[in-house]
Amino acid sequence: MTQRQERGRGSGTPAARADRGPTRSIDVDDLPALARGCAVMGAGGGGDPLVGVLMAREAIQRHGPVRLVDLGDLPDDGLVMPCGLVGAPTIAIEKLENGGEGGCLAAEAEALTGRPVVAIMPFEIGGSNGLIPLTWAARLGLPYVDADGMGRAFPTMPQMTMNLAGVSSSPCLMADERLNTLVIRTGGVEWTERLLRSSTAAFGGAAVAALYLMDVATARRATVPGSVSRALELGTAMARVEIDPIDTVVEELAAVELIRGKVIDVERETSGGFVRGSAIVEDATGEGRLLRLEIQNENLAALEDGEVRACVPDIITVLDARTGEAIVTERLRYGQRVGVIAFPCPEVWRSPAGLAVAGPAAFGLRFPYTPLAAGGTRAS
Amino acid sequence: MTQRQERGRGSGTPAARADRGPTRSIDVDDLPALARGCAVMGAGGGGDPLVGVLMAREAIQRHGPVRLVDLGDLPDDGLVMPCGLVGAPTIAIEKLENGGEGGCLAAEAEALTGRPVVAIMPFEIGGSNGLIPLTWAARLGLPYVDADGMGRAFPTMPQMTMNLAGVSSSPCLMADERLNTLVIRTGGVEWTERLLRSSTAAFGGAAVAALYLMDVATARRATVPGSVSRALELGTAMARVEIDPIDTVVEELAAVELIRGKVIDVERETSGGFVRGSAIVEDATGEGRLLRLEIQNENLAALEDGEVRACVPDIITVLDARTGEAIVTERLRYGQRVGVIAFPCPEVWRSPAGLAVAGPAAFGLRFPYTPLAAGGTRAS
Repeated sequence: MTQRQERGRGSGTPAARADRGPTRSIDVDDLPALARGCAVMGAGGGGDPLVGVLMAREAIQRHGPVRLVDLGDLPDDGLVMPCGLVGAPTIAIEKLENGGEGGCLAAEAEALTGRPVVAIMPFEIGGSNGLIPLTWAARLGLPYVDADGMGRAFPTMPQMTMNLAGVSSSPCLMADERLNTLVIRTGGVEWTERLLRSSTAAFGGAAVAALYLMDVATARRATVPGSVSRALELGTAMARVEIDPIDTVVEELAAVELIRGKVIDVERETSGGFVRGSAIVEDATGEGRLLRLEIQNENLAALEDGEVRACVPDIITVLDARTGEAIVTERLRYGQRVGVIAFPCPEVWRSPAGLAVAGPAAFGLRFPYTPLAAGGTRAS
Repeated sequence: MTQRQERGRGSGTPAARADRGPTRSIDVDDLPALARGCAVMGAGGGGDPLVGVLMAREAIQRHGPVRLVDLGDLPDDGLVMPCGLVGAPTIAIEKLENGGEGGCLAAEAEALTGRPVVAIMPFEIGGSNGLIPLTWAARLGLPYVDADGMGRAFPTMPQMTMNLAGVSSSPCLMADERLNTLVIRTGGVEWTERLLRSSTAAFGGAAVAALYLMDVATARRATVPGSVSRALELGTAMARVEIDPIDTVVEELAAVELIRGKVIDVERETSGGFVRGSAIVEDATGEGRLLRLEIQNENLAALEDGEVRACVPDIITVLDARTGEAIVTERLRYGQRVGVIAFPCPEVWRSPAGLAVAGPAAFGLRFPYTPLAAGGTRAS
């Protein structure tokens, strides 16, 4: 982050700078840290961070740094546009945006509501989805909200805090890189999700969307605050690492390290606008332990000997053992040396309403949710 | 049709009444004839006419007769809304409309264009699709345009005369019986069709749509005029039949009777928002002749001994041998006694542009188009 008031790099630590209020901004130099943080927080989902970094870098170089704002610093009745990529990350990784989609979504949002969009918000903090909306903010000259609608990444639209807060899922706006657009209005989020998902498949498996348009006052009670700065701080801390990079992440997030070892199997299928599959990690110590990950865009559950070590809505992320960087699910492959960590989700997901849409049963997993205790501990 | 100027039933023959200009109207008593005519003209498609009659009867009983107007009688800059059912007729037959969809589509059209809808037009003349938009016209108190966008029924959106005339396929409006709505805007009709079709499947296989919104001046050069009155006249003539009912249809339409006999096989599959399949009719004379029909919502081709007897864009319709009424493709079944007739499509479909979207190749049929000669002849 950069102090806009100083028109240059700030000198404090990132955490200190992040606390200084509404004049923070995100510049090109912040992108690698932001991407690292988003990828770890994204539970393996939200798309490939490299794509996000490349697009955001180009947009910021051309249009200048993006102001990062708290919802408290925006007018109550301003229109906030939560947005990002939807669909299968395996497809999004090579079906790139043209950059104009955000403008297309904003124009549609403004035409439908008759109000200007005052700020762009990522609907999830994940691999590239913490960065792509930033790209649009840069191009549109709009601030970027330091919040998101999940505090992680999830695969479907009901799994957003805006849904838990009762924000209408209509209108839902979609676009693709050809700037084809869709406006969906339904009687409920299940229908919106159904139409969004079928259209994502029709768009070729990946598209972009603006979801849960709302005013600032509503957004203050309906989102996870501080997600963007948290990702930035985490990514910045990861860059300072001189010791074991996975330990750094575990400590920063008060996470639990579930296993450290080698990816020995990956099964992955792209269908219906999702990636589904599983991966198996074998421990490096020669004890023969195996950890199985169940995947739907994100890592849903980690199982060992038939026991659930961690599961949704808690956050499970696979880290590269050498660099500590997160490996998104579409990049998982045989032979990778990894550590698998888990850390607690935002509290809202542990409520009955949160678990109803984002707990194991919501993904068809046949076991109850057991909250992960905050850890900061190494694998046993 | 009824003379509105007389505030009651007219006394002339239907054909004579149809010629009397802009004060014609469609009342409950006209519906059976209109349905019969639409079903014959619809090439086996456009949905089940019974559903259309029942819905139109209820709407007209409640809201009064609907004025039938020529495009020449409407203001140049008035907004015309072509509309109807989309999807698989096998599904539409039991997934009924709630009646409010037309109002929903019109409200959306008016909000998007900022102009009032001055008239409702069926986008195709087919089984129920000549009647469902009439239902909406009754409920909205709007006139019904004596024209359509095909002069028959076809399964997809490029296969409309508005497309040949260069009318934009955007915005395309969809709704379902829960009044979920979609607005689709794309760079071309292929994308509009793709999104419409995937959404139709997501809606459960059938939905309603308003397509090719246009002003009256454009509609005059972009539609098939007189379709509704032609269907009414045909249906009225069929009711007068005292001799062979199939002969009457053949004579009215200058059609060719391809075969008369029994349906001995029907293969039908509902997928991707369409019904596809084939049917075989064995002749009744004991000569062992077999006629095979290829189907995609509509009857696409009639083949005998490997020879193409008739094919799209010409119109092939299966008639009940006893009543002369058309049997829509979703009602075809083993054992029915039928006559299969074919008659020429509107000339616009025989142009290179027409054949490109609606000729055999457009349906994946691997034979060239041979225009059907106007007949009025019995099967050889």
